[in-house]
Order: sequence, then C-alpha cells, then structure tokens
Amino acid sequence: MLLDAGVTPQTGTDSMTNPTIEGLDLRALFEPRSIALIGATDKSPWSLNTFQNIKDSGFTGNVYLVNRSSPEVHGMRTYRTLAELPDVVDLIFVMVPTTVVLSTLHAAVDHGARAAVILTSGFGETGAEGKALEDEIIAFSRASGLTVLGPNGNGFINAAEKITPYGLPIGRPLLTGSVGFVLQSGALASSVLQFAQARNVGLSFLTAMGNESMMSVTDVMEYLVDDPNTSVIALFLESVRDPSEFRRIARLALDAGKPIVALKIGRSALGARAALAHTGALVGDNSVIDAAFAQMGVIRVRSLEDLILTAGLMASLNGGLPGPRMGVVTPSGGASEIIADRAEDEGLELPAFSDNTTRALQDIVPDFATVQNPLDVTGYVVIDRTLMRRSLAVVAEDPQVDFAVLLSELPRVPAADPALALAAYGDSAENIKATAVPTVVLSTVLTDVTEHGRSIADATDFPHVLGGIEHGMTALGNAVRWAAIRRNFVGQNSAPTPDPGGIVLEREPSGMWTEYAAGRLLRVHGVPVVPTELATTADDAVAHADAFGYPVVLKAVAENLGHKSEVGGVRLNLQSADDVRDAFDSVTSSLQAMGSTGVATIVQPHRSMDGIEMLVGVVRDPVWGLTLAVGLGGVWVEVLADAAIRVLPVSHDDVREAIDGLRGITLLKGARGSTPVDIDALVGQVKRIADVAYGLGDRLQALEINPLMVSGSHCEALDALITWSPTDEEQESR
Amino acid sequence: MLLDAGVTPQTGTDSMTNPTIEGLDLRALFEPRSIALIGATDKSPWSLNTFQNIKDSGFTGNVYLVNRSSPEVHGMRTYRTLAELPDVVDLIFVMVPTTVVLSTLHAAVDHGARAAVILTSGFGETGAEGKALEDEIIAFSRASGLTVLGPNGNGFINAAEKITPYGLPIGRPLLTGSVGFVLQSGALASSVLQFAQARNVGLSFLTAMGNESMMSVTDVMEYLVDDPNTSVIALFLESVRDPSEFRRIARLALDAGKPIVALKIGRSALGARAALAHTGALVGDNSVIDAAFAQMGVIRVRSLEDLILTAGLMASLNGGLPGPRMGVVTPSGGASEIIADRAEDEGLELPAFSDNTTRALQDIVPDFATVQNPLDVTGYVVIDRTLMRRSLAVVAEDPQVDFAVLLSELPRVPAADPALALAAYGDSAENIKATAVPTVVLSTVLTDVTEHGRSIADATDFPHVLGGIEHGMTALGNAVRWAAIRRNFVGQNSAPTPDPGGIVLEREPSGMWTEYAAGRLLRVHGVPVVPTELATTADDAVAHADAFGYPVVLKAVAENLGHKSEVGGVRLNLQSADDVRDAFDSVTSSLQAMGSTGVATIVQPHRSMDGIEMLVGVVRDPVWGLTLAVGLGGVWVEVLADAAIRVLPVSHDDVREAIDGLRGITLLKGARGSTPVDIDALVGQVKRIADVAYGLGDRLQALEINPLMVSGSHCEALDALITWSPTDEEQESR
Repeated sequence: MLLDAGVTPQTGTDSMTNPTIEGLDLRALFEPRSIALIGATDKSPWSLNTFQNIKDSGFTGNVYLVNRSSPEVHGMRTYRTLAELPDVVDLIFVMVPTTVVLSTLHAAVDHGARAAVILTSGFGETGAEGKALEDEIIAFSRASGLTVLGPNGNGFINAAEKITPYGLPIGRPLLTGSVGFVLQSGALASSVLQFAQARNVGLSFLTAMGNESMMSVTDVMEYLVDDPNTSVIALFLESVRDPSEFRRIARLALDAGKPIVALKIGRSALGARAALAHTGALVGDNSVIDAAFAQMGVIRVRSLEDLILTAGLMASLNGGLPGPRMGVVTPSGGASEIIADRAEDEGLELPAFSDNTTRALQDIVPDFATVQNPLDVTGYVVIDRTLMRRSLAVVAEDPQVDFAVLLSELPRVPAADPALALAAYGDSAENIKATAVPTVVLSTVLTDVTEHGRSIADATDFPHVLGGIEHGMTALGNAVRWAAIRRNFVGQNSAPTPDPGGIVLEREPSGMWTEYAAGRLLRVHGVPVVPTELATTADDAVAHADAFGYPVVLKAVAENLGHKSEVGGVRLNLQSADDVRDAFDSVTSSLQAMGSTGVATIVQPHRSMDGIEMLVGVVRDPVWGLTLAVGLGGVWVEVLADAAIRVLPVSHDDVREAIDGLRGITLLKGARGSTPVDIDALVGQVKRIADVAYGLGDRLQALEINPLMVSGSHCEALDALITWSPTDEEQESR
Repeated sequence: MLLDAGVTPQTGTDSMTNPTIEGLDLRALFEPRSIALIGATDKSPWSLNTFQNIKDSGFTGNVYLVNRSSPEVHGMRTYRTLAELPDVVDLIFVMVPTTVVLSTLHAAVDHGARAAVILTSGFGETGAEGKALEDEIIAFSRASGLTVLGPNGNGFINAAEKITPYGLPIGRPLLTGSVGFVLQSGALASSVLQFAQARNVGLSFLTAMGNESMMSVTDVMEYLVDDPNTSVIALFLESVRDPSEFRRIARLALDAGKPIVALKIGRSALGARAALAHTGALVGDNSVIDAAFAQMGVIRVRSLEDLILTAGLMASLNGGLPGPRMGVVTPSGGASEIIADRAEDEGLELPAFSDNTTRALQDIVPDFATVQNPLDVTGYVVIDRTLMRRSLAVVAEDPQVDFAVLLSELPRVPAADPALALAAYGDSAENIKATAVPTVVLSTVLTDVTEHGRSIADATDFPHVLGGIEHGMTALGNAVRWAAIRRNFVGQNSAPTPDPGGIVLEREPSGMWTEYAAGRLLRVHGVPVVPTELATTADDAVAHADAFGYPVVLKAVAENLGHKSEVGGVRLNLQSADDVRDAFDSVTSSLQAMGSTGVATIVQPHRSMDGIEMLVGVVRDPVWGLTLAVGLGGVWVEVLADAAIRVLPVSHDDVREAIDGLRGITLLKGARGSTPVDIDALVGQVKRIADVAYGLGDRLQALEINPLMVSGSHCEALDALITWSPTDEEQESR
C-alpha cells in the first residue's frame, strides 16, 4: 500500500467498465486503484479493521483517510474533506453517521469518485424512515453514476487482487484461491473466513451484501462469472430477490464451467401462498428451492461446512468429477466401511476392481489384506509407507473407476525427522498428481489443516485435502452431480416451451374456474378430459346420459365451488334415467339450499377407478413463479406426500425425471401384478398440462387436475380446477 | 514412570478383581501397577510408540522391557525373559512373532502375570490356520486365569489413570476427560484421538478391540459403566456380537446415567435373512439396529464427528438436557436462521420469549434489533462485548426455555490485549455457569479449538464449546432425546412380557403354516381372525357358506402355498351356493393340476374392504432376534415402505409410539373424512400379535398378518402365514 504517497493522480478510464452489468461500475468498486476511508476514526473498530485489512493485504494503490476534526487517525495524516485529496479516488468507503451519508455521497460525486461502499447502518433495516433515507441516497447515486455496495455492509475482500476494504477482522493468513463468496449475512462472513482458512480453502473474493440497495447478490455473481480469478461461486442466501436474473446468471456460470454452490436458509419456514389445498401442501418453499436450484445446476448444500468444503473441492477439480465410480485406497477397514455407507447415501458407486487391478494389488498389500473396493492396505502402512501410494497408482488405472480417493491427510505437527517427512509428502504429491483418473485426497475426520500442515502442502505442492469422510462424501457427490448436469446443459438450448401467457382465453380469467370451464380449457389444448356435458334441466341430463350410456356421474356446477363432494354436489354410478333424474333433483336442491342461483349440472360417463389416480398441479410460488407438482393422487396425496416439484417451463426430460423420482413409481411400474402404466404416455400428458399452465402465464394462480386417471397408456383428467390471479382492482378491493 | 526402579515386588490382590465381569481381571488389565513389554525392539514402531506413550503419560508403576538378544532397547536395559524380572508384573504387552505368542503366555503365567495385551497379528483375521492358533492361546489363557485383550489390537489408553500401553502414536497433549471409547477399528482410533483433541474433548479411556477373542466390546463397556472416571461411553461398532449382553449393559448404563453413543457402520449392507416377502423387505438390517438402539436408549450417530461431539456434549452436561425448548443468543441473523432450520430437523423447539423476557431484552439490545428467538444481538457486539452475556442471563430466565444456547467460541489466536481478552472470557465463563437453566456454548463452524483457545479455556474455566451449528444441533437433539428416554426408563421395570417360547403348540412347528393353521393359532391366543371353516367337499363348503351367510370367500389350503392368489387359489365375493360349488371345483382342480394331494379349502365370510389394510409382521433378525414391523398393508407396503420396526418384546407404549410414528398415521386418523381408527384398539391388537410371536420363541422364523383389516375400533386378521425355523436336522439336510 502506498500510504498517501499519491504523486500521480489516477482516475478511472472507460475501459475498466464491465460492459455486461448495466449501470454498475463493478471494477471501480471491486478493483479500485485508490480508496478513501470517509469517517475514519480511532474510536471505531470498523475503521481500524478496514484500515488494517487494506494495509495487511499489500494494497498497492493510494489510501486516504478523511476526518473532519482529527489531523491524525490510525497513525496517519487525514484530510478534512474529499476535496482536499491530492488525487481522485475510485472508491470511497463510508463510515460517517447515517444522517450525513447523503451529503458525503454528494461530495464524492463532486470529487469524481465512481464507487462507494457504505458501511453505515440505520437505513432500510431499521424501518420506514430509514428506508426512505436509503431510497434517497440510492436514487442520488444512481442518477450520479455512483456504484454503491451496501448500506449496512462490511465491504469486501478482493483477495486475488489484494484489495480488502473490509470492516471486520480478517484472520491471517488470508488464503488466496479461486472461490468467490457472496453472502447475505455480515456476521457469517467471519465464520466463512475462519472455516475456509482452517480447511486451507483459498478465496478470490468475498463480500457480505448489506442492504442490497443498488448492488444485489446477482450483480456480484455476474461479476464473479466474468472474474478470471474466480472458478467457483459460493453463496449464503437468505432470499433470492430476482429469480429470473438469478436463473440467467446460473446459466452463464454453467456455460463458463464455474459451479455455484449455495446454502439457502429458511428450510423450516413455510411461506404463505395462495394455492389449492392439495398441491399447495405438497409444494413447500423448500422443495421449490430444491427444484429450482437443481434445474439451474446450482448445488444446494445444507451447512456452512458443506458450502466451503464443496466449493473448495470444486475449485481444486477444475470441472467436477467425470462419473460416480470411485476407487478408494485407505489404511483402515473401519474408514472403508464408513466410506461405503456414505457412498450409498450420495449415489456414489464402488465398483469391484478388475482382475488385473486385483492381481496387481495383491502383489502390493500384505497377504492377510483383502483386496476389495474400498481397499484397506492394513496397518502394515506403519512399516511400509509406500503401500498407499503404490496401491493408488494401480487403482487409478482400473477401467471401472471414474476417479480415485486416497484417505490421507497433511501432518498436524512436525515429524521427528522433518526432511524425511517432507520427502515422503513430496513423493506422495507427485504420485497423486500422476494418476490416470482424478484423485481426491480425503481426510478421515474434519479437523483444521494446521499451520504446519499448510507449510508442508506449500512446500511439496500437495493436492487439496478434502475435510473428513462425512462432509467429504457430500462434496464428492456434489462434484459428480454438477458435472453430470453440466454435460446435459452444455451446447443444449433451453427446451422449446410455449409462449408464457400465449394462450388466448374465451372468457375473463377471474376467480375460480370449476370443472366444466377448466375441463373445456384443458381439452381445447390437447389434454384428455372425461367427456362432460352441461345440463340445466333433468331432461337435458337424461339425454346426455343416454348418449354416453350408463352408468354416468352427475355433478353440481357453481362458481367457486371447489369441493363439490363436501356439499352433496356429486352423484356417482347412476345406472338409469330415473337415477339421473333423482340425482339432478337432489343436487339442484342442495345448490338452491345453499343460495346458489343459475343452477346447472354436468353429466359425465362414470369411469371405473381401476387405474391409478395421479395428481397434477401447478401453483404460483411467490418467488419462482409457476411450479409443477406431480405425484400419486387420491388418498395418496395426504399419506404419501410424495410429489415431484419442478419450476416451469419444463422439458420432456424434466417431467420424466420428476416422475421417475417418485416413491410411488413402483406402483406406476406395476406393483403387485397390476398393469404397468405407460410412463412415456404419462410424461407426455403431464408435459402438456405443464405447457398449458405456462401458456396461461401471469393470469394463472393455480391449476389442479385431481385425479388424472392413469391406466396402461390411457390418461384422462376426471376433475380439474383453475384459480386465477386476482386483478389489480381485485387486489385493492380486498 | 519408575523405570525399572522396582524394589518392592508388587503382586495383585483379590480386592482388585472386578466382581461384576465374570472370569476377567479387568483391573489387572486396564489398571496395572506394572507392565512388561515383551518383544520390545528398536526396530518396531509399535514397540517404540508403546514405550514412548507409557513414558509420556507419566505412568508411576514399573515398566520392564523383555528382549532375548539386545541388552538395551529404547535406551533402557532389557531382560532376556520374564523370569529374570525383579518383581512380578500385572500386565504383559506382547509384541513377539505370532509363532511364539503361546510360549510367551506360558512364561507369563509361570511368572504370575494376570493380564496380557496381544498386539501381535496373524491370527483369526488371516484365516482358518490363524484362527486355530488364536483358539489355542485363548483356551490356554482362560484355563490359566490370564485376561487377554486382542490379539491384533493396539492396546489401550487409560487416560484418567495415566496408563497408556498403546502401539500407535498418541498426539499430545492427551486430553483427559470422562469419555470412554471402545472401538472395533484400530486405525480409526487415531482419527478419534485427533478429532477429540481438536475439539477439546477429554477422554478417560480408549481401546481398539482387535480380534475380541476373550475380551469383547461388551466387557469393556461394562468396565466403563463401573469406571468412576467415565461418564459417557462412545462406541465404533462394526458388529454387535452378543446382543443380549449388549442390551443388558445398555440398561446398566442407563440406570447409571451414563449415555452410550454409537457409530454403527454397515448402514448400506442388506444382510441375508430368511423372511416373508413383505415384512422382509421392510425390515432392513439398518432399521432393526435403529430400533434396537432406540429401545435400549443407545444414541446412534452417523459420523465420527457426531460420535465425538455428542459424547463431548454429554460429558459436559452431566445427564442430558431437560427438554427440547431452546433459548438462543447469537451475534448473527444468518446464524440464527441456520439454527432455526436445524432445530426443526432435530425436533428442537424455539419458543417465543415471554413478555418479560422480551421487555428485558429490548433494554439490552440496540433499538434496531428484533427481539425474537433465536436472538440476534446484532453486529453492535463489536462495540459492546457484554451484549451477548447480558442477553443470555435474561433468556435463561425465561420460563418457556429448557436450556440456553450461546453462539460463541474460544479465540483462535492471541488477542492484541491478552489480559483484556482473558478477563472477558473469564467474565463470560462465570456468567454462562450462573444461568438459570443449562447453557450450551456453540460455535458457528466446526474448526479446531486451537492451542491458544485451549489455554484460555483452561485459564478461565470456560465451559465446553460444542463444535459448529451443523453437528452441534445434532448433539443437542441427542442430548434431549437421551434424557427423555432415560426419564421413561428410570425406576420402570421392563414391561411384563410373555414367556419367550412359552406357547404350547398342538402340532409340530415346521415348514410353513398357511392361513388355516396360522389363523387358528392366533385366534386361540386372542387375536381376532376372520371366521374360517375347513371344507374338503363342495357340500361342506356350501354348508359353511350357508351358516355364515353370503357373500363368502373360498380359498385353497395346501402346505407351503404362500401366495394363494397367484395360483388361482382364491375366490372372492361368492353370492350363492352355486357360486360356492363352482369355486370349490375350480380351486380344487387348480390344486390338483399343481400336483397337490389331500385337497382342501377354507370358507370365510366375505368382508368388505372399507377399512384400512394394515400389515403386521414379525421376522427373525439374525442379530437382534424377533422383530416387529407394523405399517399400512396392501398396495401401501410396496409404495409407502412405511413400517415401524421394534425388537421384541415390546410394551404397549412401544407399539403406540411405533404406530404414531408411521407416515400413514394421517390415514388412520381419518384423512379425507374417513372414519378414524381407534388407535388404542389397534395398539392392543398389535401388542397381542407381538406377544404371540414372542411366545412362540426360537421356533418362529416369521409371522405375517396381511391384511389386518382395521375399521373404527374393529380389527380382524383376514390372512396369516407363519414360517417356522428349520430344525437342526432340516438345517443339515439342506
């Protein structure tokens, strides 16, 4: 850092502007060549931390401290105002009181600064008044071309470029690598830094977003997709504010081969949502996020440890793992069995070694060892330290193996003979890097890579060591899954989908469309629906019944009558004209008793219930939009709660994968001797239903077919319900 | 350690013998006052490690080295034979070649030694020849009253008593505490020691069992139940060799208030088992272990990290946690939300704070903080370091809260002002220990407690810090569940159960008893079974049908005909005498066509299938014996695979808990407007079925009732099948 040595004034040039992120000057913000700390004071730990962090990282640009009253802060001269600075800074780091932030930004714009980090809090996070103030400063900044991170953030750590205007302590050493972190939590950033350091995972970049007023998580994600220093993007998310932007950038990242790993919290919260009873209960917020992330190729993890361990592994792998078949070399039978258990959890495979491999291993390991996968070379490793690496070379040659795992780790404390230890780790490192397939080094338990361990790793260029079997196997599973998803995506354009909102409707979409109207709409768009005729008189009903042939079903038609059966509005298995007449009278009296006017009924053929009832529903998720749920219907819905969820639009493959993943798939495939369902035909119908829903666009609130009766290759919707999104006027009148 | 200073010969006295563990002198083994290392040599890392470990731990007894040829080993004089020693040692530690182990044991017995650790391998683990040798040395030792640990073990670490004859390196410092480890893996012991040290979890004792020839896991468990230095028993298990002994000791441990925490591997392996199709598929090895452990109050964990973290927490708590309601204080909103997610996973509750608590907290935290549980005191903690501990005191007073959690941790590196930091941690430690309810300190991520952190903890008597939210919440859940189980057990005698094998049978139990015989047996013992009459002629069948009234069911009866419906042996819904005659003819021809002689049928009333079909099965698990599976029956079995498993015998409460835990419980409780099942009545019938099975004892291989038709308070078995264990002759003739 050149402390106020500023002789040559430096100003930004247009060539620094990142062209892909509109309106934001992310390079001035994240790669500034000079920084002014405004409101620097010895009394503030944030000021002290920021100053110390910039200094300790070896920033080579100019740093100025601005303080109205103290001539010296942090042992350095200050300037009273930005105007006094000897040159124009790219970035101002704002720590002034809330009330003077706006005037500070005015001064910054006058000065010519192009970006600001606002650490100051007291804005939107405190309530309406703070929000108004925040809106004002952001409106001004936007109008003035000033790019703002925060307010209420802690700044950022650009580790790769050694630029760390960051308000909390950074534990040293700050390990540089290629993981870029974007966090919607300031306090957790310290834990992320701590754990990454402990596991020797280096970072390119880290920021905790603060209030995300101008700059949002997706903006930083996009910066990192473009950033050559970053190969993996790791996220801590409280909420996804702009899902379509998130989706767009996830696709960019996948195309760029940069995995996104995300810890999204709020698993336990069931958000409020307007949805039909059944589908709604199946589509929890959490399962929608799971589905959305999986469809985008974003790796979702469940803990901070998994976030960093998976990201660290991905950074070390340069593109995931080629397949699920592991060849494992360990010095422990117990560890081998733990690995086998965890492999099953993660969908990883432990293929039997080929005969050649087995023979070659038998020549290496002691006679009493059992040659199998995972391989336990036995405690004889205490005598012959080359057992592991020689076995690894053989295992990695096995044609059945996509990648190898070596259970090993870095030393925690210095050995009795340091030179010998160094040589051994050096040999091992070379051997690991020379294997025929990628080899991952995995430790048994999750402990820190100690300072000594790191020094050995640095000295011998030892590969990344994945931390512990438990989380390590999760990371390996993630690496395999991500690579598989990427293979499917790359080069493939999005599946052709209907025009969202492209369906033209015959009547105004409002309130609830019950069976008759919903069924008509679906039928028009190619979904097979049980034949249905409207009848407003008993004679009509009988005429339709005669035409269908007996038995028939007669149901009430009334607006907003969702659950017909609960009000006596459904009569099944009518065997004759007399039955139909009786049913008509009874249903219409029920309706009249409820005060319904414009009484009508529908008549349908009575279908046998020999097939399997499916539920196919689409509901609007408040974040991710229209979301498909498909599962077994009828009583199964409540008991099994086994629905596959996909965010619309969906491809044929998406639907097939969803249905294949149902627990109820055994039933569809013909459990207990029943006729198997033609899954292809079912997939086609579900895709068609999903496309109709997608084509209804913003107007659709929910669409539910329950049941879709499935039997062999025959599918038919026996009941359907559509609810429409309230119009703006309807919203207001509530 | 007094190195060969031996002036006063020491011999064992009877008072040292542990009276509760028959035939084993565990004190001579685990608390010897003198040790001889036989086969000590500078060439063996095991010898060097063992010697160094004993020396480093500060053993105060005599240690002798025995080596036939070298006069000096490990820098110490040796003895050529045991006979030359100046006094009699309690324990010999055997590292001689496999072939001379037996003669060494002879010499040890002649010498007067009372216990031996055999590190030497090459015995049962290598095959039949080694097994024979092992049997020989164990038979000799048993006859001679010599207590043997191993062979093929690494010895033990009695950390509490500073006695560590252990053949692998012990990372120093060896932290002393009250967790006793018993491991069925030598290599994993090093990882256990490493992780325990990293998380500052002290141990009383550790052993890796080796071949368990004389001394088994359960023997050491029993020693630890009696050991005043041990408060928690932690196990790594590959297999449970003596389940009834394991069960007995688990009960002793529960009575003694010593939690047992176990990592049992082999989750992925599906053992071979003789069982009926449906029940067998439901009762996997892994779910039986889950059930058996839960019934015994053994905490099962899924990783080494969870093993040690849960054990460490339990050791710090002295008896689990009083209830599931947590009050949580954190400096981070993000961490609070992760905790909320994990609390839901673990069945832990986050009650709303009382008004008093809320008011008191509002006086402490900044205005912009939101007072809720978990409490985020905000980043203002950087300015006011007392925020956390003052908030904790208030939260721990809340009457809604069973225990408190403080998200905090020990420092990783020395602070700028060490005295200030020490004082702060000291104040915090006092405050935490003074809370109204137990308080657990939890760190955010799972990193090591560093050497510096440990020094601060030691200097300030800072409470145990649980490692990371992810595993920490699992440990908290375990502590709550264990305490609840213990409350249920303590003072309660085992539920009265039928005499195993006490049921007298009318005919020889062999092969398979199909519906008629099985139904009779069940009916005799109080299980409601659909009325069933045997008919060998069409006239008989019609007579029975007339007596029952129509419709009726007619089924084939033939030995070993498990799945009648698949061979045309079942005719339902017969409406008249003619129907019955036709059915009789058709079923009997089918049977004859299959070559069956002695043709017979049964007639039963045709029951409507309006109720809910349950499956109640009992199968023999190869380890845990008769095991009950109860779940929804019919097609549900295959699709839902939702069975609750309990090892017999079961109490009424066990059965109720099992049924309450079914996913299908919603259906039983009256999903979709159906009549709710009388759960009490159902529990009673299932308990009765379980008792009949238990009463059949060793003879029973499997018993399956499918379906048990349940409707309101009415239960009735509609079909039953019993298979009997093959007799010894039958086994041999296979």
